[in-house]
Order: sequence, then structure tokens, then C-alpha cells
Amino acid sequence: MRQSKLFTKTTKTISSDMKAVSHKFLHQAGFIRESVAGRYYFLPLGIIVRDKIQKIIEIEMNMAGAIKMITPVLHPIELWEETNRTNSVGFELMKVKDRNGSEFALGGTAEEMVIDLVRKFNLSYKDLPFNIYQFSQKFRDELRARGGLLRVREFMMKDAYSFHVDAEDFQNEYKKMQDTYKRIFDYVHLKTFMIESDGGYIGGDYCHEFVMESKIGESRFFISEDESYVAQEDVAKFKKENKNTNEEEKDIQEVKAKRGNTMEDGVKFHKLPLWQQIKDVMFVDEKERIILAIIRGDLDVNECKLKKIINSNKIRHATDKEIRELGSEPGFISPIGMKKGVMIVADDSLRTIKNAYGGANKKDTDLLNINIDRDYKPNIEGDIAMASDGCIAENGKKLIEKNGIEVGHVFQLGYHYSKKMKGANFTDKDGKEKPFYMGCYGIGLDRTMATIVEAHHDDKGIIWPEEVAPFKVHLISLNKVEVADKIYNDLVKNNIEVLYDDREGSAGEKFADADLIGCPYRLVVSEKTLKEDSVELKKRSEEKCELVKIDQIVKLLNS
Amino acid sequence: MRQSKLFTKTTKTISSDMKAVSHKFLHQAGFIRESVAGRYYFLPLGIIVRDKIQKIIEIEMNMAGAIKMITPVLHPIELWEETNRTNSVGFELMKVKDRNGSEFALGGTAEEMVIDLVRKFNLSYKDLPFNIYQFSQKFRDELRARGGLLRVREFMMKDAYSFHVDAEDFQNEYKKMQDTYKRIFDYVHLKTFMIESDGGYIGGDYCHEFVMESKIGESRFFISEDESYVAQEDVAKFKKENKNTNEEEKDIQEVKAKRGNTMEDGVKFHKLPLWQQIKDVMFVDEKERIILAIIRGDLDVNECKLKKIINSNKIRHATDKEIRELGSEPGFISPIGMKKGVMIVADDSLRTIKNAYGGANKKDTDLLNINIDRDYKPNIEGDIAMASDGCIAENGKKLIEKNGIEVGHVFQLGYHYSKKMKGANFTDKDGKEKPFYMGCYGIGLDRTMATIVEAHHDDKGIIWPEEVAPFKVHLISLNKVEVADKIYNDLVKNNIEVLYDDREGSAGEKFADADLIGCPYRLVVSEKTLKEDSVELKKRSEEKCELVKIDQIVKLLNS
Repeated sequence: MRQSKLFTKTTKTISSDMKAVSHKFLHQAGFIRESVAGRYYFLPLGIIVRDKIQKIIEIEMNMAGAIKMITPVLHPIELWEETNRTNSVGFELMKVKDRNGSEFALGGTAEEMVIDLVRKFNLSYKDLPFNIYQFSQKFRDELRARGGLLRVREFMMKDAYSFHVDAEDFQNEYKKMQDTYKRIFDYVHLKTFMIESDGGYIGGDYCHEFVMESKIGESRFFISEDESYVAQEDVAKFKKENKNTNEEEKDIQEVKAKRGNTMEDGVKFHKLPLWQQIKDVMFVDEKERIILAIIRGDLDVNECKLKKIINSNKIRHATDKEIRELGSEPGFISPIGMKKGVMIVADDSLRTIKNAYGGANKKDTDLLNINIDRDYKPNIEGDIAMASDGCIAENGKKLIEKNGIEVGHVFQLGYHYSKKMKGANFTDKDGKEKPFYMGCYGIGLDRTMATIVEAHHDDKGIIWPEEVAPFKVHLISLNKVEVADKIYNDLVKNNIEVLYDDREGSAGEKFADADLIGCPYRLVVSEKTLKEDSVELKKRSEEKCELVKIDQIVKLLNS
Repeated sequence: MRQSKLFTKTTKTISSDMKAVSHKFLHQAGFIRESVAGRYYFLPLGIIVRDKIQKIIEIEMNMAGAIKMITPVLHPIELWEETNRTNSVGFELMKVKDRNGSEFALGGTAEEMVIDLVRKFNLSYKDLPFNIYQFSQKFRDELRARGGLLRVREFMMKDAYSFHVDAEDFQNEYKKMQDTYKRIFDYVHLKTFMIESDGGYIGGDYCHEFVMESKIGESRFFISEDESYVAQEDVAKFKKENKNTNEEEKDIQEVKAKRGNTMEDGVKFHKLPLWQQIKDVMFVDEKERIILAIIRGDLDVNECKLKKIINSNKIRHATDKEIRELGSEPGFISPIGMKKGVMIVADDSLRTIKNAYGGANKKDTDLLNINIDRDYKPNIEGDIAMASDGCIAENGKKLIEKNGIEVGHVFQLGYHYSKKMKGANFTDKDGKEKPFYMGCYGIGLDRTMATIVEAHHDDKGIIWPEEVAPFKVHLISLNKVEVADKIYNDLVKNNIEVLYDDREGSAGEKFADADLIGCPYRLVVSEKTLKEDSVELKKRSEEKCELVKIDQIVKLLNS
């Protein structure tokens, strides 16, 4: 392509919100342009890169036996109501009515749509398993879009959905998709961790994110020193070491405690360690249930783990007023004597301490020597604790906290959708109707593109890996147009992708543009090099240049 | 692909609304499935065909020098307000609000979006011309969807937009795009007419549709016997022969006319020819303007021509009440003495008659010997007449009425958008800011796919042209699985696209499926043919079969 034909020029100007490197360079080099916040044009250079990423994914998915198809963008809202996702997705879902009054969701993910399609056919066990996928524009009504293509409101996603007779058959596909994703991300030169994760509103019992480590990433995860365990913060498990369980249980005791209502106040007042305190946090969920989460004083509640254990979509902190209406007191909440109907959820760390201390459900009053089972009985016990940097993984290794960018996600869905949607069944060998066992698998193409830039750049611009580069070669003519034209035509004839800077302009400007755009090879045609019948060849990723005879260019670049 | 892996089975069942052949066969063969009315899934076979059509268009557009890019699907409504299209498009536009209250149009066409992009760059005459195109999902809130993929509410469109310094430069591109479209439709085996057309809400002064003749098509057009003139009904021009203009003008005369209010009543009552009568039709437009359209009695008003001549987006017939409020009388309307403020629009056919007759703006009263200029003065004169089968083209040949399916459309836009949108300018050689001169060019991919089926089928199913067939070969195994497997692998290895019917089932069922799906070649492996180390080869478009030695199959199919 001739650069003179590219109306989208490079620019030095950036706006103050362009903090991510990928945002800055993709904008400056002319790959993308914002329409309004979170919605982007893919300019001619940008669509070439995204198409290449798409092609790589398509080939790998086909090789894994998945079958391409496509659903409409507008999903009848009735389908989302069937699975109750209109509630669980909440504000992120965009809805639109047509002139006949029918309501639609703008597709975010397409579980309901593919199930609605599949149930139109009367399938039997013989038709299973299969995995269908699509590339289509997805919509998320994010409150704040940021980071350029890293968090957008509209984007191209590859989403795949697999259908199985049972969990065992699904496991094969889950493993195959994990391997496929690893190959895809290797191929586009992204070093990713596959980490245990939380499924959010997708549902299902377990899932894995593919995450590239990055300080600007919004995925917080923990990795054990030996890298054998990696998990997203909302599922990360860690050892809760025994504290004092060999102590004798002492008699419970109510004491006046003139203090503030922070944890530290309690520690200072009673001169007891933080870990011996019980931390009480009161929540209200979307069904108006009241939940008292309790945990060892040196730990924090992870709200995502809590939601999962109590099966809620949304929770919020109770107000002081609500706490008092329960007959308790902010800062002095206690599971002991808590009003009936409040669901007490205890972190299993409370099994590591004895003779704990904490509030007494009345102002300026604490209890000492609280013991689980004897003094209070949780409704639910389990892991609701937040991991933190330096805590110990179950394999005994230290956990390190990291940030990363999520580029792919594979989900076990199990029967999560098929049991909610009527007729999402197949006929098994025994003649009985059984629900599909399912999985789903997503890659955001736009974010993948941005993440490649986050991984491959220097301070001058992007350094595209050849597999996804807009062009292999950036050919620059310094006023030797005829020779450059000839080289350009030669390259095109030999199917070498080339961006030809045939514009007027200084060498400095042209070199700066080439560095910014980031094609893997730069060829410069100038009077100096032509004296030796040569052009100057430089790899974007290296500093050194070499002279290449004109008649050797094609051979060299094709090797 | 193995047919056993295709969960989308063929079906005999059709619903009563599947009247178009393409609707019926694409549904039965498993290319598409309806989600809700006018919104379709493209099943695995369907997406292959659509992707092939897309690839053909992409290659041709690139060869013509157009550059691919893509806009967001959601268009900020402010842009559509800038060009006043929120009014002109009306109900067909779907709108959606995000959680921040911003309003968007779901993209129908993208003139505003591409202009908003282009004006972000400071372009000069040196950057022009260019033509940018995209493939993206489009939305039209059609009142009634029908005909399967022929009229849908959501579809994939290739839309292109070109930017020029002036009309002359645009003409080159317009011609180039017309040629490109001809090549595209030739390539996918659609015989199309390029016909003068009306631009509807796209705007601009002239445009051409690419239409395939079809009885079920919704485009009505006229073609001269010698095929040198083809025009859509809303722009078709024809000769309005002189009737009696050499007559002397007689004195105007008011007469009682006890009659009904049809044209025929007038003819019978006055015993004068229909062509000598003046037909008066009263309209109201979206700006509440009142328009009296008058025309020779033997012709009809074409509302599209009328709207264009008066520059209205929408018109409706005036009610009897409204007519009376103007001091006139339904059935007896006359331009003579019409209330001031009513816009009188006369068809130029009124210049072919003298001493006409018609109403007198009061009940049961007619005027005789009405003459233009002497008795009434139109505000606007021009062509607002509807062509009809058998009327005479301006070249003297008879016009024949046809129906067809519009598959593509090229538009001159001129300054229609660039003068409405602030900053849609380039810097010309003289240093002055000038608005872009523009064109746009669209092809609906879904409709193109359906039209190919309308053109290529028999009573058993589809007969895909090889260029767009889902697979070149349909390989059918009749219980000789091992040999068939080997042939399948051979074909795949040699890059011959093959659908392999490896399912259990009768020969009859498999042949019926093959005919329905319509791959160009059918290969049958059976005990009988294997006796001669052969398979049976049949072209879908022919009746005869031939035996082909197994080791010759690849060679034959690759030739």
C-alpha cells in the first residue's frame, strides 16, 4: 500500500487520558481513532492487524474441530429472561426496542442465542459433542471506558460454545480449548498465564483466564514462587495457619469497651493481637437477604468469594441504620445473639483461633473469649478471604501478587444454562432427554491487539511481531522515487506485504513514522545506498542496519 | 467437513411464510435459521457462503483501490442530527441509550460516521481522492420483514464512501465502482441490470441500482425494448405525446356536474376523453405544507418524483376534512382559485393538452376549457408522472415493466452531507477550505446470497455456482466407509473443499440432501461402483452421471 493513499496520518498529539502505551501508539500511528469514549474506528492499518488476529484464531479453532457460524447481534430479551441474566448482568446490558415493541439485548455473550438455536434441532447423543464459534461485535455498557482498546464498550469477540453429553466429554474439549488458546497466544507473541478465575455473570463452576502480566492490567492475580499455582484474586486459595487452637476455651466475658469502631481501636484497647479479633461485615444482597460475613481480624473479606458461596449476583454494605435496625451497632457487630434470619457466613480462618474477641451488638461493649461452635454457629462456612502478597499457597510456596491483562477466558458452564432453558436437551442412548453439558470460550480481538502492543514496543513506537504486523516491510523512498517504485512493485509482485512511504517529506519524519507504525523490516532507498546498487535494511527490533543489493531484497525477505 | 459433525440437519418442514424459493431452500438445507422475524442465524454452511461472497467483494474493492476499515456499530445520534437524517430516515432507525444517557443510532448506513472520522484529519487536495469501505452489521427497523434473507432487519453490508475534490474526479470513481459491481455480480453468477434509481433517504442527485430480474423482486423498473434504457419506476422517464395543443383556447365555463368523484365519472358525464381531464391530488408533507399535484387525467402521480421535486421527506394524502377546510371539495378540486399558500405542482403533461376539464372547488361543479398559464399558474412544473408498461421511452422504444431484486446500489452524494456537517472540508490548491464531493456504494451480502439462490435452483434444491458454493464436492458414502474415508482424506489433502456425508442413512435421503444443499459436484461411493475401482460423479446442474477411477478424482476435480 502506498502511504500517500492513506488518509489517516500519524500524529504527535495525544490527549491526557492516553496513559496506556497501546492506547497512545495505536492512536498516534493511525491504527485506531476514537468515535466517542470506548467506541473505536479501526483505521486501514488497524483493520489489517485485527483481521490477521482473526485469521489466526479462525485457523486454530478450525484445527481444533470447532465450527464457525454467526448469531444475530440483537438477542430477543425473552431469552435472557429465561436464564435470569437480565438481572445478573445488570447495567452492562444494553437494551433496545423495535417499532413493533419487541425488546432486544445487544449481544454481550451469546449463550442463550446458541442454545436457542441448538434446541430448534432435535439432537441426540450421536450429534454430540460439537463446538460452534463466531466472530461478532459485542456490546458492554461499561461505566467507564479506558485504556484505548483495553476496556471498550464495543468490540469484536470470538466466542465459542461447546455441547456435550456429560462432564467427562466436556473435559476433553476444555483441555483442547486451553491448548488451542495457548497456541493462539504463542502465535501472536503474547506470553500468557492460564489462571484459575471467577466466571462473573457467565456462570458455571470454574474457569480459566489467559492473562499477560502487565502493571496496567486490571486482573489482579497471585502466582506461587515456583509458578506451579496461579489464580485470580477472587479465587486464589492460601493457607490459613493455625494460631492458637491448642489453647483451652475460656469463659466468654462481656466488657465495656470505650473505643472507636476500627479494628485497630480494638487491638489497642484490649492489647490482643489483630488475628484474635473477629471482623464482622454486614451485607445486603439483590434479594434483600442480610448477610453477616465474619473472618479472622488480620484477613479481609473477598466479596466475589462471598457472593459465590451465598449464590448472590450483587451485594452491598449494610448502612449504619440497617445495622441498628437489626438490634446491633456499627463497629460492635457480633455473630453472637445476631437476629434470626441474618445469614452468618464464616471464613474458615475462624477455625484457626480460639478465645477470640469482638463486638457484642451494643455500643461500647465487647466480648472476650468467643469460640466457634460453642458461642455461635455459622450458617455457612468456607473460604471468603482475600489473598495478599506474601501469603502462603497450599503447596507451601509464597504467593506473589501481580497484575495482568485478560485476553482470553475459558469457562465450564455445565448445566448452568441448559437446565434453565426449556428444551435444551438431547436424547441419550437410553432414550431419555438430558440437558446439554456445556462450556464456552472467548477471546477479545481488540484487547488482544492492544496487549500485543503493550508487550512489543519501545519508546519510539510499536514493534509488531511479523505474524500480526500490518505489513512486513516499510519501504521508504528518500527522493529516489523511480527506483523505489520499482522495488515496491517487485515486492508486491512477490506477495511481500509492503507499506511504501512515497510521500514528500524529510528522512527524519519518515523514519519516525516507520518506528511509530512498527513494521518488522524497514527498507530505505537513498542516493547514498544506490551508489552501491543497494538499499538499507533494518529490523524494527534491532539497531543495526545493513546494505542489501537490490536484486537480493525479495530473496532475503522471503527467506 | 464431515456431515455427521454438522448439528444443523436438513428439514422437509417449512412454514407458510416461506414463499420465496431462496427462503425455503436456505432454511431447509440448513444455511440459515430464523431467530425472530427478520433476524437470522447463519449456520455453518451459510457462513461459508457469505464469507466467500465477502472475500470476492473484498478482492474486487481492493483491486479498485478502495481501502478497508471499520466504524463502530453504534453511531452517536448527534451526527445523524447534524444531517437531519433522524427525521428523513424516520421509523427505520433504531436508537439506543447507554447508562450515561448518551443516545446512539444502530448503524444503517455510515455516511455521518465516515465523515466524522475523515474530518478529524486535516486533509488537503493531495490526500484526495480515496474510497474507504467496511463490512459491518447493519440495522433497519423494517415494519414487515419477509422473504427470508431478501428483506431483513439485520444484515451484513459492504458500504463504501469516496471523497473527491470535485464532480469530475468523482465521475471517475463512480464509473470505476459501477464496473467493479458488474464484475462482482458476474463473478457470483448474477445477471444484473444497472438501472437509474431514486436514492431514498441516502440523498444525492442520482444513483444506480444493480437489479436482478425476478418476479418476486420488490424493485419495479422499466426497460426499453432495445435494453438501451433501464430505470427504476420512481425515476423512469417517458414521452408525453402531444394531444390537442393546436386547438384554439376556448372560454372557460362553469357547469353543474352531478356526478360521483372518480375520474371515470367525469369522462362519462362530459363525454370527453380521459386525457383531457385534469387529475388533482392533494398532499400534506412532514413540514405541514399543503401540496396540490396536478397531472393529465390518463396519467398517475408518482409520489417519489413529487417528493423529490418539492424536497420533502414524507407526504400523505390530505383528508376530506382538510380539503374542505381549504375551501375546496373532494372530487372537485381545481388549481383555479385554490387558496393561497397551497403549492401547486404540475406535471409537464399538462403542456400537451388544451381546453381541459375538471373540478371547480365546489360540490357538483366542473370547469370546462381550462388552460394552463391563462387560468392557473403552477408554482412548480416538472415530471411527476408514473411510467407504465407500454409507454414510450425518450428514445422512441416501448418501455416494458419488470420486477427485480436490488443487490447493489451506487450513489452520487455530491455535497449532500459535506455541506451539512461542519468541517467536512479539505484545503484546496488555492489554500481555500472546500467541502468534499462524495459518493457511496453498497452491497447487501445476505440479500446477494438469497438472490443467487433465486437465480440458481431447480425443484429439488439449490445449484450453487462453484465460486460461492459451501463446498465444491459432496462426497456420499453408501456403506463403503473405509474407501470413502480415504477419498475424503485425499480431497482434503489436495485442498478440494468437500462435504462428506459419512452418516448412516438411505441412498435416497442422502441424494435428496445433496440436491437440496447444492454443491456443484456429487461423488457417490457404493459397492457397485467399487467393482470397477470407481466412484460415480454427477454435476448438480446436469442429469448425467459418469464413473471416475478413484485415482483420477483429484486430477479431474482440480482441472
